[in-house]
Amino acid sequence: MGATGLVGRELLRLLDERSFPCPEVVVGASPASAGRPLITGSQRLTLQAVSTVDFQPGDLVFFTGHDDLAATEVPRAVAAGATVIDNSATFRQHPEVPLIVPEVNGPAAQGHRGLIANPNCTTITFLLPLAVLQRTYGCRWVSVASYQSISGAGAASYEAFLEQAVSATLDGCQQEDPSLLPFNVIPAIGSIGEDGVSSEERKMLFETRKMLAAPALQLTGTAVRVPTLIGHLCAVHVRLAQAAPEVATVRELLAAQAGIVVQDDPSAGQWPTPVGCAGTDPVSVGRIRVDQESQSVAFVAAADNLRKGAALNAVQIAELLLAEGWLAPTGDHWVP
Amino acid sequence: MGATGLVGRELLRLLDERSFPCPEVVVGASPASAGRPLITGSQRLTLQAVSTVDFQPGDLVFFTGHDDLAATEVPRAVAAGATVIDNSATFRQHPEVPLIVPEVNGPAAQGHRGLIANPNCTTITFLLPLAVLQRTYGCRWVSVASYQSISGAGAASYEAFLEQAVSATLDGCQQEDPSLLPFNVIPAIGSIGEDGVSSEERKMLFETRKMLAAPALQLTGTAVRVPTLIGHLCAVHVRLAQAAPEVATVRELLAAQAGIVVQDDPSAGQWPTPVGCAGTDPVSVGRIRVDQESQSVAFVAAADNLRKGAALNAVQIAELLLAEGWLAPTGDHWVP
Repeated sequence: MGATGLVGRELLRLLDERSFPCPEVVVGASPASAGRPLITGSQRLTLQAVSTVDFQPGDLVFFTGHDDLAATEVPRAVAAGATVIDNSATFRQHPEVPLIVPEVNGPAAQGHRGLIANPNCTTITFLLPLAVLQRTYGCRWVSVASYQSISGAGAASYEAFLEQAVSATLDGCQQEDPSLLPFNVIPAIGSIGEDGVSSEERKMLFETRKMLAAPALQLTGTAVRVPTLIGHLCAVHVRLAQAAPEVATVRELLAAQAGIVVQDDPSAGQWPTPVGCAGTDPVSVGRIRVDQESQSVAFVAAADNLRKGAALNAVQIAELLLAEGWLAPTGDHWVP
Repeated sequence: MGATGLVGRELLRLLDERSFPCPEVVVGASPASAGRPLITGSQRLTLQAVSTVDFQPGDLVFFTGHDDLAATEVPRAVAAGATVIDNSATFRQHPEVPLIVPEVNGPAAQGHRGLIANPNCTTITFLLPLAVLQRTYGCRWVSVASYQSISGAGAASYEAFLEQAVSATLDGCQQEDPSLLPFNVIPAIGSIGEDGVSSEERKMLFETRKMLAAPALQLTGTAVRVPTLIGHLCAVHVRLAQAAPEVATVRELLAAQAGIVVQDDPSAGQWPTPVGCAGTDPVSVGRIRVDQESQSVAFVAAADNLRKGAALNAVQIAELLLAEGWLAPTGDHWVP
């Protein structure tokens, strides 16, 4: 559901690429796309309006549509007996909805009642390395600054940015409108609340605490859009709850974590970048530094926001459910 | 000295714009530029090689050349009895060399012995708001992530970026080389030491502690280059040494600080950006947030790295020396 969006298209590619067992595939999109063809792998499918899809018990539903559409359609699919992996932000905060990054808290998916939420793309990027530090040393204080690509804003914003970038570049790289992204940085993503915190920042904080099962974790973050196409990068500073280890120890711990590739050889010009991680699966971690005096660790992490940040993580949740025999909902189905 | 560089040209514009009293101006550059004309305001000057300039007692020298050239030429000018305001990083760490942002620690310029250092462009950007918090509440832990424009890397890198940006954009905004900046982010600026800390990050940490006279301040930072032309932005997270105030109080304190303009009205789309601060004098501060639970304050700050981050701050130091009667060196001239 949401098959024509940036994440939906990436998801269909991944299902094909990873030979995910799909005996029958139904693709849903907006009513405007209904009846149009969609080609994925060797299959030629016909798009249906999401609201007309007839969900059935035993269905596995990947939902990558808008938050508003999720509010009505996700509960409808769950009520029909389907298992939904939902990429929207709509139900992530519900205490009864597991929010899963398989490498971090996969077991929390067991016993789901028809709905599993897929986390925010930026949260996933920094969560994998942060979880290693939290598990091993405990974190006293965490700050995250993000460098997020325009593909995270959806297909329409992505296309608009490409047009603006071409126009600004042809104009001698001149760009004097502070509300436009080419050759600029916009330190605000989503809606901003009365307290000054943006919806994106709120997701980073809430979801991290939920997935680490650390409701009191002190975490602060600033979400910033930068003029990149694919790949979110995060600069993370962590004050540990105990004396800091040697930097080599941190590097080994991170490299041993499934889902992370350590790229940390500055003398060879090796560090995480958005361009370098685009199209790849793991979270790239580098620029690892330790300050013994302040018991702190700093690093940068980058991931393809359409893959590990969204579609890949959703497919990995599905693969986990299949492998563990957790696909069917348990007990009464979830209701909002 | 360094008149043909990005900072040197900005400095000449500012001296003219601010009607700085310059009865006689000598412009120095590399030997390759010697003899070439340079037009500034209504004056037509002839460039000299820096190494051939005959410095005299009573001269005020703005040095904006490379660090290597500073190593020999700055001490030569000081030894000749001149007063040098040096934008290079070469002598900033010397304990006898005042490092000055006039609004923060102007009085530390008094009693100089011929050399005053101008701080790093990123440090200046976050120092003004940070100094307000440090003075009022004390800072227990500070983390800074920077979003630095390519003009901070000098004229040659700036020109190379423009060419790469045009080429990548004409290529459909495709850019697959992680070492190039267009549509990318490079989380490494300067040379990176054995401990993984970059020279740019080291400057941010050392210079902040020096100017705040807080040698034990716990501060961590990550310096990142982003594909912008002019204007550095910093995302700053501060844990205070005491209970956090209301956000309105922080906003008032920051707005009352000379050199800061608060741009913090998200409902009107108002926040600091690189494009918005380019060509302006003050440091723009916004996205101000307070978290009572963790006693922390978060904000973003942006400044024109060629103006307040470099040339303007140097001119303001000179204006301070003139206004206070501190222009002439005191006592024995400084030696490295």
